[in-house]
Amino acid sequence: MDNVNLKKLAGELNLAVSTVSRALRDNHEISQETRDRVKALAAKLGFQPNPHASSLRQNKSRTIAVVVPEIQNNFFSQVLNGVEDVAQQKGYHVLIYLTHEDHNREKDILKVLRNGRVDGLMISVSNTTTNFDHLEAYRQTGMPLVFFDRVCEEMDVPHITTDDSKASYKATEHLLKMGCKNIAFLSLACNLSISNGRRSGYLQALAKHGLGNKMIVECGTDDEVNRQKIRKLLQSEQRPDGIFAAIEKFAVNTYEVCYELNICIPQQLKVVSFSNLAAAALFNPPLSTVIQPAYEIGKEAATILFKVVEKKMLLPNEKKVTIASQIVERKSTGRS
Amino acid sequence: MDNVNLKKLAGELNLAVSTVSRALRDNHEISQETRDRVKALAAKLGFQPNPHASSLRQNKSRTIAVVVPEIQNNFFSQVLNGVEDVAQQKGYHVLIYLTHEDHNREKDILKVLRNGRVDGLMISVSNTTTNFDHLEAYRQTGMPLVFFDRVCEEMDVPHITTDDSKASYKATEHLLKMGCKNIAFLSLACNLSISNGRRSGYLQALAKHGLGNKMIVECGTDDEVNRQKIRKLLQSEQRPDGIFAAIEKFAVNTYEVCYELNICIPQQLKVVSFSNLAAAALFNPPLSTVIQPAYEIGKEAATILFKVVEKKMLLPNEKKVTIASQIVERKSTGRS
Repeated sequence: MDNVNLKKLAGELNLAVSTVSRALRDNHEISQETRDRVKALAAKLGFQPNPHASSLRQNKSRTIAVVVPEIQNNFFSQVLNGVEDVAQQKGYHVLIYLTHEDHNREKDILKVLRNGRVDGLMISVSNTTTNFDHLEAYRQTGMPLVFFDRVCEEMDVPHITTDDSKASYKATEHLLKMGCKNIAFLSLACNLSISNGRRSGYLQALAKHGLGNKMIVECGTDDEVNRQKIRKLLQSEQRPDGIFAAIEKFAVNTYEVCYELNICIPQQLKVVSFSNLAAAALFNPPLSTVIQPAYEIGKEAATILFKVVEKKMLLPNEKKVTIASQIVERKSTGRS
Repeated sequence: MDNVNLKKLAGELNLAVSTVSRALRDNHEISQETRDRVKALAAKLGFQPNPHASSLRQNKSRTIAVVVPEIQNNFFSQVLNGVEDVAQQKGYHVLIYLTHEDHNREKDILKVLRNGRVDGLMISVSNTTTNFDHLEAYRQTGMPLVFFDRVCEEMDVPHITTDDSKASYKATEHLLKMGCKNIAFLSLACNLSISNGRRSGYLQALAKHGLGNKMIVECGTDDEVNRQKIRKLLQSEQRPDGIFAAIEKFAVNTYEVCYELNICIPQQLKVVSFSNLAAAALFNPPLSTVIQPAYEIGKEAATILFKVVEKKMLLPNEKKVTIASQIVERKSTGRS
């Protein structure tokens, strides 16, 4: 079917089969005029290439994979919207894989992808990933790879992130400005690049203001475990007067514990969090947030990945892209 | 590479190449013992099949596609988690496509998928889809197709939904029980099956309680347009004392307008909404919600899709599956 149709198109247009084939794949060696003529006839005759045959022939799947820890998190779903918009323009499919923050699942996914199912891969690593051998093995195949948000700093692969450390510094300084003297940081697992960035921004702000009393509590995926840790923190002798949550989930857990223990936000405790949830403005009280440029990160990461796929040269500033986050001050950090 | 390795495995195990190939694909004609032996050796020798070659040979991609309107909505991201868990167990990949509520994009996606890139398709139709020809064309190819949540009632394809009409009836009755006499319904575009179900549940509850004063306001994807419509509603002569929102976004817009106009929830207006957002409990005031069994819908839809893919017979009760939603009463519908 496939060959007959290519032949038929070629015959009707008086072109070589290879020209028709390349025109359909938007090869730049074929003039725009010819591409348009071929595509118009292909559309008219309802020509549909066999995707497996053409993948085998071109060794291209016209698919990119995006590996993310989860999609219930607004950040990643917004990133995916950015990726998807670029991929659609390029005529590519997007395969989305979820690791559910499980290192072994991430390893399995990368092993499957190593055999060439996709033309390129974007990944934000899981928070249980402490060993990067599977990523290094993927990189060594020479297949296009881009990191976004949660990156592996050591690997020589394009990185697209937000300015975690700087944004974290600003959020901590905002709490200090609003009168906090004793700020706790609810952190992700410390192996993640974003945890390091967010943690170091918090520590730098404390150091700059001559405060040595750092309080770092590592939280995770289990809501009940997080609430226990936060309860313990808020019932301790050295109870903090400010909490900075590294992710939205930990801020939600903090609110839950404050309701339970009748701790008033912001009078008794000020709260700020990294979060991309629009409804944060409806919280009781409205939650101050550090908003990450999620859509832009997705768009930029996909754009750079396609450059690598198309073997275009990356500019030096495209190897490490940082897009700024933005702080939105709301009542949860207001003056008492 | 591929053939050499299959041959090599077959040689070492003293089996036919076709037996090895089928054992690796978990063909039930091969004994479990043989499958285990083959897989053990394949793992030991690091055998990796070429995905395009095996797709072409088997005419199987070991991929299913899920087409959803968006993933920033918690409902769909939870559905996808359910789908993903089933697919992973089956050793399948999941391709996720977003229509962004755009009928033309949905048509384009289905056209691409018609040429056999995937083994099966699950879809929740966009709210701008009023013509179902593209779905009918897909169905006529004979490729496995399952609808979930937003279905096309007329088509003879398995449907997995929640009890929209019943849940909507209960939510409206809950508002009546809490003292509302004048309830408005914020509806999705009326071409959707779920809009019809939710709308009819609302109308049935009003009718049963002898209330004729229905107020239906159709909202959409644009927040500002929605807020304008809600503002107009809440400033009208016949201002409602209860709002039932068909989706979470409309409840968020309602809260925003109430803050702006200084309308107290629940004293002046009670609000209930379909929503799967855990943080609804943190809203000011906490939002009463109709929670849909999103994860279960995804799991069930994927399970049924795989039965169709594997050409297993569906039981009569698997052709139309309904999983109940649950109402969680919070302060937004409390007694004044």
